[in-house]
Amino acid sequence: MSSRWEEFYATHSTPDNFEENKRQIDDFCQHVNSEQKIVLITSGGTTVPLEHNTVRFVDNFSAGTRGSASAEWFLENGYIVIFIYRLKSLEPFVRHFMGQKFLDMLEIRKQSNVTSVQVKNENLNTVLPILEKYKAVKEANQLLSRSQHYFYIPSNEMPTHKMQSAEGPPTISLRLVPKMLEPLVNIWVPNAYVVSFKLETDESILVSKARGALSKYKHKMVALKMTRKTKVMLVFPNTSSEISLSCEEIENGIEIESKIVSQVIENHNLFIS
Amino acid sequence: MSSRWEEFYATHSTPDNFEENKRQIDDFCQHVNSEQKIVLITSGGTTVPLEHNTVRFVDNFSAGTRGSASAEWFLENGYIVIFIYRLKSLEPFVRHFMGQKFLDMLEIRKQSNVTSVQVKNENLNTVLPILEKYKAVKEANQLLSRSQHYFYIPSNEMPTHKMQSAEGPPTISLRLVPKMLEPLVNIWVPNAYVVSFKLETDESILVSKARGALSKYKHKMVALKMTRKTKVMLVFPNTSSEISLSCEEIENGIEIESKIVSQVIENHNLFIS
Repeated sequence: MSSRWEEFYATHSTPDNFEENKRQIDDFCQHVNSEQKIVLITSGGTTVPLEHNTVRFVDNFSAGTRGSASAEWFLENGYIVIFIYRLKSLEPFVRHFMGQKFLDMLEIRKQSNVTSVQVKNENLNTVLPILEKYKAVKEANQLLSRSQHYFYIPSNEMPTHKMQSAEGPPTISLRLVPKMLEPLVNIWVPNAYVVSFKLETDESILVSKARGALSKYKHKMVALKMTRKTKVMLVFPNTSSEISLSCEEIENGIEIESKIVSQVIENHNLFIS
Repeated sequence: MSSRWEEFYATHSTPDNFEENKRQIDDFCQHVNSEQKIVLITSGGTTVPLEHNTVRFVDNFSAGTRGSASAEWFLENGYIVIFIYRLKSLEPFVRHFMGQKFLDMLEIRKQSNVTSVQVKNENLNTVLPILEKYKAVKEANQLLSRSQHYFYIPSNEMPTHKMQSAEGPPTISLRLVPKMLEPLVNIWVPNAYVVSFKLETDESILVSKARGALSKYKHKMVALKMTRKTKVMLVFPNTSSEISLSCEEIENGIEIESKIVSQVIENHNLFIS
């Protein structure tokens, strides 16, 4: 089992943009001084191509809400954030303006022969605080955002062309994605405070599964998403705590990620001190 | 074979937002007069949930570029457009402003105690023409955009909870999605000019497959995407023609959808006259 990730890297070619991403991250880290706390967040789902010239793929359901919201809360708390996201999943700040909402917020103004495009007054209270934070973060060079695909079907088993329907329904044997947590915790960043996130819909087994993962991979915390968006269980090797939003907090638009990130930061501080 | 779509509807519950979508489309069609040409576009990929409380699903690769770009060209040519898209796939107009690009285009201005958010001068030439078209289309009530999921695994075969990795790699037997073209052409809208789009990466079989589909489903045209974005083959029952972009056109940002839509409109006009 322990060599599964090694086998994975030995048999898979690196993604197209791997070298460029690596260079950008190296460059970005140059300017970080040793006093600053850094968090690396991977966000968005895992994609598995079923064919080489990919037409169809197996995907898991992650818009990247948790990752992109958490990134904002880490930034708010002064962390440097390296945000690796799956193409088309949500990014920090921009996530608040998806779809037609954004075009509907804009108006065209003509004043003495000068045309400008402005955010409508009624939307200013929504846009301005987010834009101000985004610009401050950019200014301070506090955020690096890079997209990356995560794949896991051995590429020599994939057909080159689209599978033909006429040949009958295809049967797909999925491989389990090797758990990168093991080398991550033990080899790549042994001094880091590593937290994993897991979505389990079956509440009866989730804590035992989280404990199993912690004892196997030796990382520090598993955040379990229980019911979507309003309840999360934080599982540590010996304890656990539950985070939830009250109806009032939900109505006021409080995001549960703000609470999760506070907890992670608290534990991170304990860990480094 | 011919009853597969009937079985599909008999065994699947309607999507959550089906009734609301139906009502909105009915309302929208009230204001259309008999002189106006209408096109209904379905855009974005097909999603297949692997579990009831969906965590993972099989997806095909469609960002909705072709559908959303085509919608813009039909609008440009005076058509009323009903745009049914897969959640998170691209929508007309907004598709030009995805990701951080949009926040980077905005600037905060403070003039005599009044704060406003404006599109930067350097981005005005990009934003203004698209925004003007969008606002004109909205004003004229020319576009209805509704999201919809397309599913196709019989729901009684799905596990309720997330499949457990510990039980070993899951094997998935896919069902073929019933071809809705047959009832669409013969029962639902027998007087419509129906066009289907297909992506085939294996050029040696694509024309024969398209001819097969035309003779089976009796619709009017198959548009075959060959190499991504720069070449399309239009296949009719007795003829075919190829549409491609020259290097110059590609450099000037011409979209192939403008040419496809011109051809469809030409053939639609011949059909109704």
